[in-house]
Amino acid sequence: MYRDPVQSLETVVPSQAMRALRVGMIGIGTVGSGTFRVLARNHDQIAARAGRGIEIVIVAARNLARAAGIVGEGVALTDDAMRVATHPELDVVVEVAGGTGAARDWVLAAIAHGKHVVTANKALLAEHGGEIFEAARRHGVAVAYEGAVAVSIPIVKALREGLVANRIEWVAGIVNGTTNFILSKMRDEGLDFGAALAQAQALGYAEADPTFDIEGIDAAHKLTLLAANAFGMPLRFADVQAEGITALQGLDVACSEQLGFRVKLLGVARRREEGVELRVQPALVPAEHLMAHVNGSMNAVMVKGDASGVTMYYGAGAGSEQTASAVIADLVDVARLAGTPAAQRVPHLGFHAHAMNALEVLPRAAVRSAHYLRVPVHAAGGIEAVTAWLASQQVPVRRVTLAAPCAAGAQVLVLTEPMAQGALDLAVHALQSHPAVAGAVATLRVEMLEA
Amino acid sequence: MYRDPVQSLETVVPSQAMRALRVGMIGIGTVGSGTFRVLARNHDQIAARAGRGIEIVIVAARNLARAAGIVGEGVALTDDAMRVATHPELDVVVEVAGGTGAARDWVLAAIAHGKHVVTANKALLAEHGGEIFEAARRHGVAVAYEGAVAVSIPIVKALREGLVANRIEWVAGIVNGTTNFILSKMRDEGLDFGAALAQAQALGYAEADPTFDIEGIDAAHKLTLLAANAFGMPLRFADVQAEGITALQGLDVACSEQLGFRVKLLGVARRREEGVELRVQPALVPAEHLMAHVNGSMNAVMVKGDASGVTMYYGAGAGSEQTASAVIADLVDVARLAGTPAAQRVPHLGFHAHAMNALEVLPRAAVRSAHYLRVPVHAAGGIEAVTAWLASQQVPVRRVTLAAPCAAGAQVLVLTEPMAQGALDLAVHALQSHPAVAGAVATLRVEMLEA
Repeated sequence: MYRDPVQSLETVVPSQAMRALRVGMIGIGTVGSGTFRVLARNHDQIAARAGRGIEIVIVAARNLARAAGIVGEGVALTDDAMRVATHPELDVVVEVAGGTGAARDWVLAAIAHGKHVVTANKALLAEHGGEIFEAARRHGVAVAYEGAVAVSIPIVKALREGLVANRIEWVAGIVNGTTNFILSKMRDEGLDFGAALAQAQALGYAEADPTFDIEGIDAAHKLTLLAANAFGMPLRFADVQAEGITALQGLDVACSEQLGFRVKLLGVARRREEGVELRVQPALVPAEHLMAHVNGSMNAVMVKGDASGVTMYYGAGAGSEQTASAVIADLVDVARLAGTPAAQRVPHLGFHAHAMNALEVLPRAAVRSAHYLRVPVHAAGGIEAVTAWLASQQVPVRRVTLAAPCAAGAQVLVLTEPMAQGALDLAVHALQSHPAVAGAVATLRVEMLEA
Repeated sequence: MYRDPVQSLETVVPSQAMRALRVGMIGIGTVGSGTFRVLARNHDQIAARAGRGIEIVIVAARNLARAAGIVGEGVALTDDAMRVATHPELDVVVEVAGGTGAARDWVLAAIAHGKHVVTANKALLAEHGGEIFEAARRHGVAVAYEGAVAVSIPIVKALREGLVANRIEWVAGIVNGTTNFILSKMRDEGLDFGAALAQAQALGYAEADPTFDIEGIDAAHKLTLLAANAFGMPLRFADVQAEGITALQGLDVACSEQLGFRVKLLGVARRREEGVELRVQPALVPAEHLMAHVNGSMNAVMVKGDASGVTMYYGAGAGSEQTASAVIADLVDVARLAGTPAAQRVPHLGFHAHAMNALEVLPRAAVRSAHYLRVPVHAAGGIEAVTAWLASQQVPVRRVTLAAPCAAGAQVLVLTEPMAQGALDLAVHALQSHPAVAGAVATLRVEMLEA
């Protein structure tokens, strides 16, 4: 089934000196329909900014009847995505279907046919970006993906262009709206993880199968892209140490508050002498820190550059028109590339291919940070025993205190100075069998995110 | 006095396929020396990102001996800025001398000689940008100015490119670090304006003559640039309603806290049916709002787009290398323009010239916002009289309460619903002569900055 595309293409009359950019779209779900809506609503303004029009001329959709209701007249429809990917009259293919199987084939086909690609598919790029960007380089086309990281926030542009002068020291982000919503609920309403997840699902902030979000995989996809752009390193998704929030207890959220911290699911990429830390985990952030005030489903990315100092970027991390905002920004960037030699464009991962660094990803044991420990003890007096034991083990302690009384019994709270995760793990393993300890010791990383 | 520039120019050997960008710099103070430092330190990385080197080949300085110590070998020096502006072998002129007189001449001369210009001079652009951008359009060159607004934050890029798909509804920014530092001191240490200013001066956060900062003029310069880029309107600096913080009392900072607000010097550009509000003033922001947590000398700009929703950009608003980060980002953008037709570039004010809108700037009386009133009364019982009077005058009141007891006597605090400034002024003028009122009524705008 196929609606005459040639006729549709002929209706695209250049409104400026330069003809409109001809776009094909694969997928017309939440992001695709949002893109149509925003392009229709702000058409004149976008052309006034871009210097040329942007016209979606063909859309591939599984449900053509539904798609017809979204795209309106004059847009060709097909249920054959590959037909869009290889269409001879398109400048750009927008892939907003999602997934990493067929989407990879479509994107590679579009590139092989000399088309630029715009996608918001973080999983596809984190897992197959190396292959895709290399193909794009060979064929002299651009693959733009602002919508793949913290959708409404132009963070890829900030890292690749705005902060181009800087040696980036670290990037830390709240880049998953679902988990941030759940953590905000846990804190504000004193809920446990399960109850907060159920609320998030009821309100549409979490999917029926929330695994990718709550296990930190989605955040790891985004961190992979951020780290590559920050450090000029290849995409190393498989090496990200990703820990989700499923094991986080409401008690630790509450105890963190008592110590003056809030728990956030942070993606952290940090450059060290010996390599790069690449990790996603629930971590304590000082309550007065700006990142602690990123609430609900909002996202934020903080970047430390050697010249800029700390800058932060905040906005919605999901949503139909929020993602469309990024997809259209990418389309306008692509519209400006006509005739530009590839060597002059912004490189896909911020650095030109010959200058990428195969930086080593540090193993979990070598990651350094401060730590929070919650140690259940048989009685409040256990604090002396725990303190003495930590000192005897040379664990660098910043603070030891008793938690406010709670149903779970007496709890000793410990904040350490920065130390290697491996040393912390060993110490906690040994502490676990100390006679004063009454239950499982809980640990979380502490991130000061200092300027 | 002049050190052989020709020889210096010949030492610039292209390190990439494309020869290095040849840059002349006018001024070598804080920003200029920072630019040298960052370019030297991160030279390889910047070339790896930009695809070509960036070489400063000649510098104009008043103090040549001092300049020689900064620029090192191989860079020509002159005390004749016009010689740099008109130098035949330069691609770009960086103007970091400041001022609006001679700087305007240099920039126009550089443009007339076909050179791109990079500047961080907000006063120059806010006051003469119309003329400068028009000259640049005629001569087919670019004038880049990321460093002119909230230096370390790539907010011009975010507005012009990242948010290109959006109809911008409002922009609100803390864009002056000096006043934000003073306001943070007033709040944290309960200081009055004068004492906080003295501290800021002692610590180097305020200049000996702080007029431009504390009277809101510097913020108005930046707001002028932000508004033009947000709405596609011409630069209208003369029409910005700028109010500084010199009249702000410590008592009002403290009373705002009691109501759950913090006082920030906000630049606000808001699109209304009838025109655009363009205004700088100390305003109450909800204490739980992200903008309330922008402390010290930091800057932040919040933007509401119709598709993106609210996004925020945070970072240092001043500093040597912080500004250099923006200047170099502009240089890299310019380095990528070679051979690009002007119609394809990002327009100077975000919109192509034919599509700019001569939006009307609303007069002060027509600006709508919620308001805070502090009404000194003869006794605590005055709250009933004030409440009754406000109701009789149809002032839309959200909340009336008594301030905590203080040395200044009983104070009635009022928060209104949004209303026109003109109506508020009339009401306050009348209230001033009410028999229950014991002193001057203080008013401040309230900005909810709602998503």
